[in-house]
Amino acid sequence: MNIAILIYDRLTALDAVGPYEVLSRLPGAKVTLVAEETGPKRTDTGQLALTADASLAELAHPEVVVVPGGPGRGALMDDGSVHDWLRAADERSTWTTSVCTGSLILAAAGLLKGKRATSHWLALEELRGLGVDAVPERVVFDGKHVTAAGVSAGIDMALALAARIAGDQVAQAIQLGIEYDPQPPFEAGSPERAPVEIVEALRARRASLG
Amino acid sequence: MNIAILIYDRLTALDAVGPYEVLSRLPGAKVTLVAEETGPKRTDTGQLALTADASLAELAHPEVVVVPGGPGRGALMDDGSVHDWLRAADERSTWTTSVCTGSLILAAAGLLKGKRATSHWLALEELRGLGVDAVPERVVFDGKHVTAAGVSAGIDMALALAARIAGDQVAQAIQLGIEYDPQPPFEAGSPERAPVEIVEALRARRASLG
Repeated sequence: MNIAILIYDRLTALDAVGPYEVLSRLPGAKVTLVAEETGPKRTDTGQLALTADASLAELAHPEVVVVPGGPGRGALMDDGSVHDWLRAADERSTWTTSVCTGSLILAAAGLLKGKRATSHWLALEELRGLGVDAVPERVVFDGKHVTAAGVSAGIDMALALAARIAGDQVAQAIQLGIEYDPQPPFEAGSPERAPVEIVEALRARRASLG
Repeated sequence: MNIAILIYDRLTALDAVGPYEVLSRLPGAKVTLVAEETGPKRTDTGQLALTADASLAELAHPEVVVVPGGPGRGALMDDGSVHDWLRAADERSTWTTSVCTGSLILAAAGLLKGKRATSHWLALEELRGLGVDAVPERVVFDGKHVTAAGVSAGIDMALALAARIAGDQVAQAIQLGIEYDPQPPFEAGSPERAPVEIVEALRARRASLG
């Protein structure tokens, strides 16, 4: 099973690597990081590089497409060749998925129109503005389109997807293999549960970025 | 604050990228992926490459050291130059940390003797055999030595460490930024909670690998 993870400059590393770590453990899975051009892509902090091993043209029809998010997604909101690739891939894919603001790219390419989908909590309004039924849920399935909330939600999404692809037992074995028994030190992972002043600080920071 | 994440061939990607995603968001943090030689390192599946931007010699005294695990750690259990670097770095570091079987490398370098520490649940016995007080906990602090359980535990470890370094509010803002509100689809993330047959299957697979 060919699984393509789209990468690009200034993506968020964990958006891509969370799903990679889960999906690469599926029996028979071949995960490939793809980009318009092969080679290293610097993530949003500039401090880490992931390597694209194939160009979009080289992997036109993966069974699973994963689109991570990150600040660099802004440059892909009206990018012809990436959108063309996504649309063509989506025509034949078994699953078309995203993590975090990756759903904005899918929506911009016209693939989520009228569908239920999610994104980073700070991006739900923008997703709604693109004609999507945007919901504040961790993982959303709408037919073959699967979207995850912010950054770390890609791990939950990939485990849920692994179960659909290979069955619950395989997904559970992967979960145990990566010892995914999360114990966050704080109740701060969602805007509903985090302290109000921290939610507001992040909203303000995002607003200042325009 | 200089944070060095040691990478090497056949490491587990999420072991490195989980802590990177959290620690790189600390104010003033500069995370560098380091290796004996710079350049791309292929992870355990061969399907993803992380790039080392600096050699060990170039970053002799980071304030924070992170040692991820993975099958490739076997080649580092008696590696002179990596052990020398770890011992020298540990002499002046503020925090020396590991994820998953990274603690076996730290222990092999003599840095965890008699200390409380953890590792991937399948590696606790081996850790104990290296003279460590190995405990099945998610994140273990023993002075400046901090160890995490398997793979995904590096996220919890890094958030706990972020709180020690920069305070609870900064750590909570990072947690909300990466929307770390985990919702695993199964109760299968630890050997205590996973179905017995899945625990046994993973034990058997590990035993067959020798």
